[in-house]
Amino acid sequence: MSKSTGCCQGFLHYAFDYETPKTLIIPSIRVGFVFRFTQFLLLLYVVGYVCVVQKAYQDRESVISTVTTKVKGFAFTNISNMQPRFWDVVDYNIPPQGDDSFFVLTNMVMTPGQTQSRCPELPTPSTTCVDDCDCVEGYNDPRGNGIQTGLCENYSSTVKTCEPTSFSLLAEAENFTVLIKNSITYPKFNFHKRNILSHINSTYLKTCEFNRQTHPDCPIFRLKHIVSEAGEDFQDMAVKGGVLGILIDWSCDLDWWARKCYPKYTFRRLDNKHPVNNVALGYNFRFAKYYRTAEGEEVRTLIKAYGIRFDVIVFGTAGKFGIVPTIVNLGAALSFLSLVSEDVCYWFILTCMKKRDLYSRQKSTFSTKVPR
Amino acid sequence: MSKSTGCCQGFLHYAFDYETPKTLIIPSIRVGFVFRFTQFLLLLYVVGYVCVVQKAYQDRESVISTVTTKVKGFAFTNISNMQPRFWDVVDYNIPPQGDDSFFVLTNMVMTPGQTQSRCPELPTPSTTCVDDCDCVEGYNDPRGNGIQTGLCENYSSTVKTCEPTSFSLLAEAENFTVLIKNSITYPKFNFHKRNILSHINSTYLKTCEFNRQTHPDCPIFRLKHIVSEAGEDFQDMAVKGGVLGILIDWSCDLDWWARKCYPKYTFRRLDNKHPVNNVALGYNFRFAKYYRTAEGEEVRTLIKAYGIRFDVIVFGTAGKFGIVPTIVNLGAALSFLSLVSEDVCYWFILTCMKKRDLYSRQKSTFSTKVPR
Amino acid sequence: MSKSTGCCQGFLHYAFDYETPKTLIIPSIRVGFVFRFTQFLLLLYVVGYVCVVQKAYQDRESVISTVTTKVKGFAFTNISNMQPRFWDVVDYNIPPQGDDSFFVLTNMVMTPGQTQSRCPELPTPSTTCVDDCDCVEGYNDPRGNGIQTGLCENYSSTVKTCEPTSFSLLAEAENFTVLIKNSITYPKFNFHKRNILSHINSTYLKTCEFNRQTHPDCPIFRLKHIVSEAGEDFQDMAVKGGVLGILIDWSCDLDWWARKCYPKYTFRRLDNKHPVNNVALGYNFRFAKYYRTAEGEEVRTLIKAYGIRFDVIVFGTAGKFGIVPTIVNLGAALSFLSLVSEDVCYWFILTCMKKRDLYSRQKSTFSTKVPR
Repeated sequence: MSKSTGCCQGFLHYAFDYETPKTLIIPSIRVGFVFRFTQFLLLLYVVGYVCVVQKAYQDRESVISTVTTKVKGFAFTNISNMQPRFWDVVDYNIPPQGDDSFFVLTNMVMTPGQTQSRCPELPTPSTTCVDDCDCVEGYNDPRGNGIQTGLCENYSSTVKTCEPTSFSLLAEAENFTVLIKNSITYPKFNFHKRNILSHINSTYLKTCEFNRQTHPDCPIFRLKHIVSEAGEDFQDMAVKGGVLGILIDWSCDLDWWARKCYPKYTFRRLDNKHPVNNVALGYNFRFAKYYRTAEGEEVRTLIKAYGIRFDVIVFGTAGKFGIVPTIVNLGAALSFLSLVSEDVCYWFILTCMKKRDLYSRQKSTFSTKVPR
Repeated sequence: MSKSTGCCQGFLHYAFDYETPKTLIIPSIRVGFVFRFTQFLLLLYVVGYVCVVQKAYQDRESVISTVTTKVKGFAFTNISNMQPRFWDVVDYNIPPQGDDSFFVLTNMVMTPGQTQSRCPELPTPSTTCVDDCDCVEGYNDPRGNGIQTGLCENYSSTVKTCEPTSFSLLAEAENFTVLIKNSITYPKFNFHKRNILSHINSTYLKTCEFNRQTHPDCPIFRLKHIVSEAGEDFQDMAVKGGVLGILIDWSCDLDWWARKCYPKYTFRRLDNKHPVNNVALGYNFRFAKYYRTAEGEEVRTLIKAYGIRFDVIVFGTAGKFGIVPTIVNLGAALSFLSLVSEDVCYWFILTCMKKRDLYSRQKSTFSTKVPR
Repeated sequence: MSKSTGCCQGFLHYAFDYETPKTLIIPSIRVGFVFRFTQFLLLLYVVGYVCVVQKAYQDRESVISTVTTKVKGFAFTNISNMQPRFWDVVDYNIPPQGDDSFFVLTNMVMTPGQTQSRCPELPTPSTTCVDDCDCVEGYNDPRGNGIQTGLCENYSSTVKTCEPTSFSLLAEAENFTVLIKNSITYPKFNFHKRNILSHINSTYLKTCEFNRQTHPDCPIFRLKHIVSEAGEDFQDMAVKGGVLGILIDWSCDLDWWARKCYPKYTFRRLDNKHPVNNVALGYNFRFAKYYRTAEGEEVRTLIKAYGIRFDVIVFGTAGKFGIVPTIVNLGAALSFLSLVSEDVCYWFILTCMKKRDLYSRQKSTFSTKVPR
């Protein structure tokens, strides 16, 4: 038989004949039971864990989100070194736009009337220098290479530091509330939702306040509640400031038989105050209000603002039945299943069965007339 | 034969002998056709859906992006209760930095000359209190626990509310344009690109304006166009404000034979105004400009700003041929394929073929000399 | 035999009998070697690439992060057309809050004393109009449809443009430092960490400065260092501005035997200045400081700020051993492995072995008594 004829015949065979593995049936209840039991365990894993728990048959996508926030509340301060003063949202909420990150001022060090001038020998309230002494009665060691003028260094010996007092100025801030509007999108699944759920009406929104038990869907949060759920004390945190995360989990199951898609709120302090590693604590920043005197000179009021920055962090993935992950996971699991159960049974036959030699001989035939 | 010898011989066999399944060839065109047809269908799925449509052979990574925006345009207002006034980007664009979220003021309620003082019996323009009455001629119910002073409550009976008029102040804002500069990175694939494509030159950038048909690559957008593509009316939206998403989809195919990586722009209103659930509509925030009188007293002009916040949301995943997903998906698909086609054929033989008993007997041999 | 009995017997067989493929053992060293070698190569791939390099046995999750930044440093300017002036963080850092995106002003064009008035025939420093001439001694072509007043167009012929000089105002800004506090979360793995690692104490934090070799964990960065690592020159960049990305890679291996989770910092210029396509270069924005004159008129100082915006971009995925990806990848790889090695050997036998017909005949039996 020439090679070409064999090849041609081979092709015919290949194209038109159905080739199926020859099998040996071992009619032993013990082996059969081991085989079925192994299969059962693996099937249980596939159905139970892969499909029910992990939902590996789903296509996944990460959330796209937009957040607007609105803080409300008033405070009144009447402390010794400041005039009596009302505080509304415009004064304590920075930046005012209501992004996904908003800051509520709770404490401050104010240095009014700073002008661009050299430091005098004796610091007076009206003339302080901007460069290296940024609080009225103190010397703040400037990190980095600040311009050190001889005059200013003179009163670095004053004891009083720039640190704020141990009580917060706007203690009432704990009763401020914030309305969080969050709208999410899963573009791949063309799914849009917002955290003001469809059953919430204007009347409810005017009176409700978030509470995990009684009002889990209310998008209005009392600041004190947020902080205490994060395991912190508002008044402690208000003195030195901090960063608090409002985490909104939008993990969704978008299959038509599930359709579970609700926001889950959790709160966590993000600038963790590790007992051993408590460096760079708190949260503060400096800003200024600029004025102009009648003579046209620029004057500024420097404010070192301490407070809590609330970061609204939206995360989550949505899953929806997809044919590719189903095939991939099912195919992989089934082939793993058949491989494993096959091997387990063969091992069982070779070790535990009396007639192992008989089975072995019947299963595998040596190719004859082939020298070893 | 002792166990040890069998084991040793088993090992030799295991290591050096090649064990291949014995097969039975059924030379029936019908069975062969069923087998090939099943294989063809599954192959079609693997090639067509998994590879071409889903590109499951690719490694994937989410986009990392940075956005700068620049709004341009002027407006002129000449309404009864305000002086004639020009508005440029500095006045209506808040914050000014041009982040991925920018706000264009379209309407406002201004309360000039607020000072820190108690409310008088009769409110006059020069002296209004900050705490619980934040528009000149109205009473705004403060949510939460505002400080209620008896005097202020007196004029809560005035009819005029703080709401702005039903026409927007800066109607001309619809003709403002915004230049969006977006630079993206896929770190895993070391791929960088920006939305100002390489064929765009300075001359084109000076004259072009985004249009899905004629100028799909121009990164300059007219605000009116954005809003109308989102299915909204600019003038309607301008009165109460809103949030509008500029979604940039950077889904990329980075394989060398494809190299498709262009931004796709879509626009969507994000604070959806559901007809039934129209609570917490619009978008506004309050901010203040602080002044100082000649006597050194702080005065502020409170502005309740209504407008459209544009959020530039960049998303997308890039895919590039990867050996691991290829193997995983191909392996899983092929093993699923062989399992399924095997089972389909066997079922076909057992149900449709006349000689099913013959085939069955030839395929599977019972282990002999084993009592049932 | 009736169909029903056959079916019943078939079910018994199916349920209780163990069916195993019959195999043919070919005791040829050559074939065995090819088979083992193919298997070895594929196993090497599975173990080496899939498990060690790609860690395909891991569940993955994207990072959730929060960033606070604090810039420090002072500058002193003494240029001809401006008074001697000190600059501190409040003056050059916009916005002041220290978000994940902060801007350091390095150059500016200032237009003081703008009031709302019509343009005079001859522009004088005290009276300039806001609408279409936004620098004192120049004409800036307003993109879009600015309101063109006849008077203003008159001095569009002046040669001097609004562009800043070729040297930057705050050249000293290169020595400013920034402290980046970054706290990350992997919610699925309940893992939290921050970039101020546990071995960093307050003393170290007061003196250290990031350096890839000597201080790779110090979270304080000198701006010049950032820019130069990104391959740019600070002074060049300071003139026209730009956007610089501080990329923090939190790719983590959270398996208990690995536990590698450290931030990796890289720096990249994000507004790439392509030599051919250098349109829309740099980064600048306009903002204003508003004053009120003694007569109650609003005056503003318009500032066109050039500078470097630093975007802190946090990315990364964490991986942790998961049973589902392990099964999926292992199952797929193994089934692929057995398919491929089977086929390779069969091809080897059919092409390279002398006794190919013998083997072929012994492996595959034709179903007898079946007409072709």
